[in-house]
Amino acid sequence: MELELRAKRKETRVNDKLFFRQLFDAESFTYTYLLADTTSKEAVLIDPVVENVERDLKLVEQLGFNLKYVLDTHVHADHVTGAGKIRELTGAKTVVGAGAKVDCASVSIADGDTVSFGPFAIKALSTPGHTDGCTSYYVEGMVFTGDALLIRGNGRTDFQQGSSEKLFHSIKDKLYKLPKETRVYPAHDYRGQTASSIGEEMQFNARIPSGQSLGEFVKIMEALDLADPKKIQISVPANMKCGQLQGA
Amino acid sequence: MELELRAKRKETRVNDKLFFRQLFDAESFTYTYLLADTTSKEAVLIDPVVENVERDLKLVEQLGFNLKYVLDTHVHADHVTGAGKIRELTGAKTVVGAGAKVDCASVSIADGDTVSFGPFAIKALSTPGHTDGCTSYYVEGMVFTGDALLIRGNGRTDFQQGSSEKLFHSIKDKLYKLPKETRVYPAHDYRGQTASSIGEEMQFNARIPSGQSLGEFVKIMEALDLADPKKIQISVPANMKCGQLQGA
Repeated sequence: MELELRAKRKETRVNDKLFFRQLFDAESFTYTYLLADTTSKEAVLIDPVVENVERDLKLVEQLGFNLKYVLDTHVHADHVTGAGKIRELTGAKTVVGAGAKVDCASVSIADGDTVSFGPFAIKALSTPGHTDGCTSYYVEGMVFTGDALLIRGNGRTDFQQGSSEKLFHSIKDKLYKLPKETRVYPAHDYRGQTASSIGEEMQFNARIPSGQSLGEFVKIMEALDLADPKKIQISVPANMKCGQLQGA
Repeated sequence: MELELRAKRKETRVNDKLFFRQLFDAESFTYTYLLADTTSKEAVLIDPVVENVERDLKLVEQLGFNLKYVLDTHVHADHVTGAGKIRELTGAKTVVGAGAKVDCASVSIADGDTVSFGPFAIKALSTPGHTDGCTSYYVEGMVFTGDALLIRGNGRTDFQQGSSEKLFHSIKDKLYKLPKETRVYPAHDYRGQTASSIGEEMQFNARIPSGQSLGEFVKIMEALDLADPKKIQISVPANMKCGQLQGA
């Protein structure tokens, strides 16, 4: 009993060490994530939006965190990343998947590589298909899926080297191999959904449940016929330069 | 070691039993919360929005939950509650704070009373000030504060029997007495913030940090000079009838 109680206290402490906060951008419907080790105060931001840098850094400062890395899941087409600006202001290193070929990134992270904050290791999972360089990030039972796997959906595959076939394999052969209880945090949601789990998506994803065939998925993706994101002409070139706007 | 491992597994199971999901309404910037006991499948919804009832009930159904209660933190002025519609469709009981005087509610809950789902008890904390009937709900280290305590702010006090003095005491003498690590989930946020903690608000709330005086707080609230919410003429009468629209 004594030992059980001690173990329980220990367990509580381990859980309490990982700070997690989801943030939202109501213009582009983007989710940004702040994670931190509450002991060492080392922190990371995933997918910050340039217009919200002040908000995000104020929170980091209030909580006494030191930003170590800013990670992008991919070269976004709908908003400009805050990564470059945050690197300038804080000295944090920017991280982008190697396949994205963003030369200005501090770290080009390859599949299976890790970056860490305090005792927590974030593992990069290469999940191309929405773009060629899309990378999901796994840490402590959570996976940040960018625009690869969305809640009940998935990212479009009709620009930026998109490939429905690659995305199919990224989701089915990589993300769906994670434990079912893994919490899924995407880069966007347009219907007010904030989170999901691998098990939920395997069962209820509208386009790619676990039993979906490649042929059927490709057919669904080809039929979408979507308009380009409003900011694509500004966002993609800026994000290839870590968020630096043309002429800025 | 054996015992420690067993205790750890047990701890994990206890944590895993409480399902939590935050949902968002991008028109009124309202947060809705779904909580459930994953063993008995009993679930509750807090502050559902009438336009999202289909989305919310689809999620409940997919996850195999049975809705037991639908709780409103108060008579909302900016959106119509989904409570009445959900009661009609599912048989769940609607819960509103006794001070709100919503006669059609299945349960008028008083300060200190509880409603439960599975082994989890939700405790009502009467927190008037934004409206006379505002009730916060506490369960398992989380508090759902409605429009009483917001993230870095608080609800307005200039209509619906609002009282800055009452709100001051609700926040300082009631919500700020909860453990500092209690997670704070409000009914709204307009800047993409999704959650906070009692400790954070005591330190960083812009209008009512823990050291704030009543006089200064009243002065801040009197100076706000806000326009009425767009839907107040529709929402308040509808919400006094559990979400039933005039003539419907």
